[in-house]
Amino acid sequence: MPYSLREIAKVINTELRGDPNCNIVGVATIKNARSGDLTFLSNRRYFSQLRTTEASAVIVSCTDITMCPVNILVADDPYLAYVKAAIYINPEKTFDFGIHKTASLGENVTVSQKSYIGQNVIIGNNSIISDDVYIGAACVVGASVVIGVGTKLFSNVTLCDDVHIGKHTRIHPGVVIGADGFGIANDQGRWLKIPQLGSVRIGNDVEIGANTTIDRGAIEDTVIEDGVQIDNQVQIGHNVRVGAHTAIAGCTAVAGSVNIGKRCMIGGLSALAGHIEITDDVIVNGMSGVTNSIKQAGHYASAMTVMEVKLWRKNNVRFKRLDEFARRLIKLESKIT
Amino acid sequence: MPYSLREIAKVINTELRGDPNCNIVGVATIKNARSGDLTFLSNRRYFSQLRTTEASAVIVSCTDITMCPVNILVADDPYLAYVKAAIYINPEKTFDFGIHKTASLGENVTVSQKSYIGQNVIIGNNSIISDDVYIGAACVVGASVVIGVGTKLFSNVTLCDDVHIGKHTRIHPGVVIGADGFGIANDQGRWLKIPQLGSVRIGNDVEIGANTTIDRGAIEDTVIEDGVQIDNQVQIGHNVRVGAHTAIAGCTAVAGSVNIGKRCMIGGLSALAGHIEITDDVIVNGMSGVTNSIKQAGHYASAMTVMEVKLWRKNNVRFKRLDEFARRLIKLESKIT
Amino acid sequence: MPYSLREIAKVINTELRGDPNCNIVGVATIKNARSGDLTFLSNRRYFSQLRTTEASAVIVSCTDITMCPVNILVADDPYLAYVKAAIYINPEKTFDFGIHKTASLGENVTVSQKSYIGQNVIIGNNSIISDDVYIGAACVVGASVVIGVGTKLFSNVTLCDDVHIGKHTRIHPGVVIGADGFGIANDQGRWLKIPQLGSVRIGNDVEIGANTTIDRGAIEDTVIEDGVQIDNQVQIGHNVRVGAHTAIAGCTAVAGSVNIGKRCMIGGLSALAGHIEITDDVIVNGMSGVTNSIKQAGHYASAMTVMEVKLWRKNNVRFKRLDEFARRLIKLESKIT
Repeated sequence: MPYSLREIAKVINTELRGDPNCNIVGVATIKNARSGDLTFLSNRRYFSQLRTTEASAVIVSCTDITMCPVNILVADDPYLAYVKAAIYINPEKTFDFGIHKTASLGENVTVSQKSYIGQNVIIGNNSIISDDVYIGAACVVGASVVIGVGTKLFSNVTLCDDVHIGKHTRIHPGVVIGADGFGIANDQGRWLKIPQLGSVRIGNDVEIGANTTIDRGAIEDTVIEDGVQIDNQVQIGHNVRVGAHTAIAGCTAVAGSVNIGKRCMIGGLSALAGHIEITDDVIVNGMSGVTNSIKQAGHYASAMTVMEVKLWRKNNVRFKRLDEFARRLIKLESKIT
Repeated sequence: MPYSLREIAKVINTELRGDPNCNIVGVATIKNARSGDLTFLSNRRYFSQLRTTEASAVIVSCTDITMCPVNILVADDPYLAYVKAAIYINPEKTFDFGIHKTASLGENVTVSQKSYIGQNVIIGNNSIISDDVYIGAACVVGASVVIGVGTKLFSNVTLCDDVHIGKHTRIHPGVVIGADGFGIANDQGRWLKIPQLGSVRIGNDVEIGANTTIDRGAIEDTVIEDGVQIDNQVQIGHNVRVGAHTAIAGCTAVAGSVNIGKRCMIGGLSALAGHIEITDDVIVNGMSGVTNSIKQAGHYASAMTVMEVKLWRKNNVRFKRLDEFARRLIKLESKIT
Repeated sequence: MPYSLREIAKVINTELRGDPNCNIVGVATIKNARSGDLTFLSNRRYFSQLRTTEASAVIVSCTDITMCPVNILVADDPYLAYVKAAIYINPEKTFDFGIHKTASLGENVTVSQKSYIGQNVIIGNNSIISDDVYIGAACVVGASVVIGVGTKLFSNVTLCDDVHIGKHTRIHPGVVIGADGFGIANDQGRWLKIPQLGSVRIGNDVEIGANTTIDRGAIEDTVIEDGVQIDNQVQIGHNVRVGAHTAIAGCTAVAGSVNIGKRCMIGGLSALAGHIEITDDVIVNGMSGVTNSIKQAGHYASAMTVMEVKLWRKNNVRFKRLDEFARRLIKLESKIT
């Protein structure tokens, strides 16, 4: 279904320079756009492509308005304006309500008539599925699980017993929520498994990427607050709390009982050691090792970045003596001054 | 079902000071405990909460006995005593025996009548399921698999052909055991896939966390010995051997043919390079890079920890010249002395 | 079925010294080989085992021919010759064609009569399954998916809508291809989800390891070219392109819009930051942090390797002042010379 440029400009609150009746059918990159496409310029690197783009309209900032052969939407932040336009043009797919005949429901399960339960879905006893919930193929939902209005489980998602999921939350394939935390205690050389008696509570408007795992709490619950964005293959240990609107990039490992503040951004492949506290508004680069609490909002990093392997070998060896070199430097200084 | 404090004190072998008839129904943190709860004090940070706790009983060390309004169990190691009490109060859920009607069993499968095969479970030809085994919903068990007495596969677990699992082992959702190892050989610029002809043997009393992967061996088997504890999202390459009672934390990558000793503790997000040997009783911190064999028991680490990003940028650049700086320091020393 | 040594020597193009009629039934390590086994010597460490091996034949290099009690195949590269022999002796398992009665197919699905669709497989509307395709138990294939000739999905694989898979590609259990990329834009403190409108295109002869995730593109497609080898638990972000015949080891995280060249080798647990370009023929060691484009073919690394924890503590602290130490060294130099 086409949208008029007038309508889009209004929805995303931008100034329109050009034909308000121009029809937009999709979005595209500035390079590969065709007639009917809306595109955007947010990186000056692609500035020269403005003149040759075949897009029907381009979102640009007021400083980038130039001789452009197509219609223009002027935005303070062209990328954010693009995102809003893309959301408007590509509303989420609707789905039919109903329970597929291959689904297995336990006893005393409450399923809203306004929800979809897909092929081979399994739901345990006493669980509650709210309105507008979508549970895709082959999901396994345990007993006493609660899933809030408008939430989507794509496919192959596993929710263990007692997990609570809020509203309008999206959970991608392969995710496991509520498996036992890694709680072990050493008893004379053997590991005792500590019963994992808590559960997991996920808030509203949360996104959880493919194959991410979020463990149930040991005594109390693991908690993911509203608006949290979690990428793929992230591991969240037991009794972690992730504050509202925090984003965690792929493959990051959050050990048990970590308390992450609100609006943080944690880069991919980072490790947060157990029992630490990260205050609000902390940014951590990818591959960072966080072993102590961070009490000041700010931007942190620790990872070494690549060099040629010959050089790396030497530096890696020297690093093992860094403390010694520092002492020798200090000693030398004391001799000179 | 309530337990008397007398009974708990006896089971966990602690001295009881207070009312032996006090009824305990659950465990809780010292802060959130309510009447009927047993709690523990193992971290002096929470000492002040002893006076205000609403718990019915607290496990403390003999040095922490103080004016406490509730019943006390005195233990040398309050945390370990708590764990034992929690295990006693929360025995594993029992399950009914039987094969769900939606399960698909291959030819010549042996399933104990004292086992549970859940919804949509698939079991390949010639596999053997022992007594007291629990196979949760949507598990896929290949052909010629053997699963020992008392083992549990929660849900969505994949065991490939020929995998052997010992007794009383617990495998969490999303785990894949016995997929092909990453065996490739370069033949004039193209990769040949090396047949992965071994399998995987998992011992008794092993725990394997959600979404962990353990590859089958190339020629011989990958082996996980008794009592090994593996957290979520760990990758175990082909032909690895993990020694008895070793614990591996989340997101660690163990490359092919690594031989890990007994009673080791490997921190999360660590990487062990291929073909190395780790002796018994080695502790490795999280995020460590282990590229050579470790022949001495001990405690090892390598990860840099975070600093403010401005400082990190400078240090990261300097690090690339560390060898040069070391040489310059040595030269300077030779001039001074 | 046994193979004569004559036949194997011919197939793998090696010189045979010994009995051409010797029957080979399998492959084994030099240490554990029994009568009927073919083995190989590629590591001089095992040289002494040549004399005692019970193998029926050994592949050795011409420099390693020695008094050996068994038949010999002489190869320039014994390991590569072994691989070719192992492939010949262990051809891939064949499978019967057909659609299991528990599979659920959507509308307008095209399934070749020469393909296998396993138990509980789900295939969405309008998908196309080519000849000789094997789709193992519990796989979920979305709508409008295309799977090329000879491709295998083992079990529990999830392919989201619109994904295209080439020919003779192998996808291991737990893999998720085509889930939404991690596209979010901050709008006044809240995250907007950016529609992920592209898909994923996987080439021919690709291997994708267990629990790996490959996200769909934001606007255009994520692309994995022919012959790429991906290990377990690798994360490939949206709009990544991986060049032909590149190999990526386990647990590596490739952020969005990374462009990796051809014939690269990326070590395990490495992180590649978003929007960078890696040229052809680059080797990156395990655990490397790559934050800038690599424009020169070569071999790169960055990870620190383990030391005793006492020493590590000191060095880690000193590292935070590395820039300061470098300045002090330079100052000292200026005083001396």
